[in-house]
Amino acid sequence: MERTLTSNNAGDTGIQPIRWADGVLCLLDQRLLPAQVRWLRLETAGDTADAIRDLVVRGAPAIGLTAAYGAVLAAREAWRARGSEWQSMYSEQISLLAQARPTAVNLRWALTRMNALAATLAGDPEAALLAEAQTMQAEDLAVNRRMGRLGAELIGTDAAVMTHCNAGALATAGYGTALGVIRTAWTDGRIRRVYAGETRPWLQGSRLTAWELSQDGIPVTLLADSAAAQLFRREPPDWVIVGADRIAANGDVANKIGTYSLAVAARFHGVRFMVVAPTSTVDLAAESGLDIPIEERGPDEIWSVASAGEVPEGVTVANPVFDITPAHLIDAIVTENGVASPPDAESVARIAAPRP
Amino acid sequence: MERTLTSNNAGDTGIQPIRWADGVLCLLDQRLLPAQVRWLRLETAGDTADAIRDLVVRGAPAIGLTAAYGAVLAAREAWRARGSEWQSMYSEQISLLAQARPTAVNLRWALTRMNALAATLAGDPEAALLAEAQTMQAEDLAVNRRMGRLGAELIGTDAAVMTHCNAGALATAGYGTALGVIRTAWTDGRIRRVYAGETRPWLQGSRLTAWELSQDGIPVTLLADSAAAQLFRREPPDWVIVGADRIAANGDVANKIGTYSLAVAARFHGVRFMVVAPTSTVDLAAESGLDIPIEERGPDEIWSVASAGEVPEGVTVANPVFDITPAHLIDAIVTENGVASPPDAESVARIAAPRP
Repeated sequence: MERTLTSNNAGDTGIQPIRWADGVLCLLDQRLLPAQVRWLRLETAGDTADAIRDLVVRGAPAIGLTAAYGAVLAAREAWRARGSEWQSMYSEQISLLAQARPTAVNLRWALTRMNALAATLAGDPEAALLAEAQTMQAEDLAVNRRMGRLGAELIGTDAAVMTHCNAGALATAGYGTALGVIRTAWTDGRIRRVYAGETRPWLQGSRLTAWELSQDGIPVTLLADSAAAQLFRREPPDWVIVGADRIAANGDVANKIGTYSLAVAARFHGVRFMVVAPTSTVDLAAESGLDIPIEERGPDEIWSVASAGEVPEGVTVANPVFDITPAHLIDAIVTENGVASPPDAESVARIAAPRP
Repeated sequence: MERTLTSNNAGDTGIQPIRWADGVLCLLDQRLLPAQVRWLRLETAGDTADAIRDLVVRGAPAIGLTAAYGAVLAAREAWRARGSEWQSMYSEQISLLAQARPTAVNLRWALTRMNALAATLAGDPEAALLAEAQTMQAEDLAVNRRMGRLGAELIGTDAAVMTHCNAGALATAGYGTALGVIRTAWTDGRIRRVYAGETRPWLQGSRLTAWELSQDGIPVTLLADSAAAQLFRREPPDWVIVGADRIAANGDVANKIGTYSLAVAARFHGVRFMVVAPTSTVDLAAESGLDIPIEERGPDEIWSVASAGEVPEGVTVANPVFDITPAHLIDAIVTENGVASPPDAESVARIAAPRP
């Protein structure tokens, strides 16, 4: 299944990485971008869990939505195999999905929501669960647009901004969190320049963010992650704007490795720091960043670009793919429920509370 | 010309990247490491300038020594072509060498020293210039051993240290500057752990430093450059130890891109910061880092790992390969003439002065 990206309705951008079509889950294979635009068709929850683990899809909200569709596939398989006794087989598949990646809490959030509905269903569960997943996807897009507006209002005029990783349409249902703010602010005419770190080791910045922004005609300057501090010293941007994989109750933020390094450099140079994430990313059960598990991935993501050979004896590779930025280094957390600024237990509790 | 690396006399390590053999300059091709150990034979100054520009050899002291041997080749060519009128042709070749790379002042320092001798020579200049280049190479090795001792004395016991780029045997005549300190301190039993950033974009950390330390049996943990700040927060090392490409009169240091980012994170977390470089790296004509030219290289070094394709329209790539760390973020500059701590105009002038 190959298609161009300009014909859907994701908003300003044509990019929408998760689609349900012909009764199967279609994921834009983000491992191949920007060289190839190719879609994978998934028909089982197990394949969906594998796709999440293997980074076919990444980005906390997109992982959550993918898992929601994975739950639809799990229910279908279980119903076909067991009929009215489908629930226990469904639960086993859900466990697989839940364990696919550890850091993004949206995965658990999405499955909890699907399970709450599943528990109420009699008869074939597929249609009701599919409707729920599609609702969540539509909500995510709406939430991104609302956050885009709230975040853009924080940006002055003639601003330079820097982002990290990809918190864009590719990381969500469409439009994006951090890139949603940048899209809105760009459309407003508030932004004169966007910088993006290449985001080692997986290069989400150069592979995904650069490609995504170029699709929308938003110019971007890529740089090595380690070059950001020198940029901040010489030509400081007005804001660093990033997404989040999990936000603790005290406002600590887990996000892509390198986020904390940027936050330290930003504070050192007086650059403001904005985190943009839906409330599904807030985990009130995590008191602080210490309670958030940090995924460690294999050495190949670091080593493979250095050599085609084996890692030499005596050399070990550390590859934590997320880090924790403490709340005190963050100026604003933007959610669809409002802005926590400064982020702390009180302001996070306020935005995390369900809307009246 | 291929050879094993264990048969020469560089000291603890067998690695010596620059050799004069059979009347030609042999350079260990650092573009191919660690996958291949291959030597290039250079017979002209022009080829030597190309090799410097193309990163066959890199590291400020090694660039200087390579240029010194390039001057020998320039003199030989000029003598063969012009006889006793060799000086003007020699000078043209020296200009080529001097322009090969802009940031490391050792290149200029080495050529100035060779030119001073060349100006005094009558008859075939090759033997005298070769002897001078070989003296410089031997001096560099001795200087590295002395700096290794001075730097190691600053390190306590049971220390963890982090380095960046490659300031090792591969960047010098042998033994290394920052890695010379680490080698000495490791031999002393002062060090329990070495961390190295992979050093995007050229990956000197993973390709060269990891390989070099593994050759010596010193274990090292590689990490993405952007992961250092999180490491400093969770398990702060005792020291960051790096080399330098140029040191200004006020103690500002030009070094591989990412050095400044590490210095900011080190200061933020109370990690001490050491720069190790011979006095040939000090440029008293540069008042501060503002006077040091920063080389900007092409986009491919960033882009090629992200995609085999073209950089998308609207995407630009910034690739400054050095940055400036201001003196106030550096705890000690170690040279063969002593330690400037804290580095400032007075302490730098003291160590830069010629020995009595």
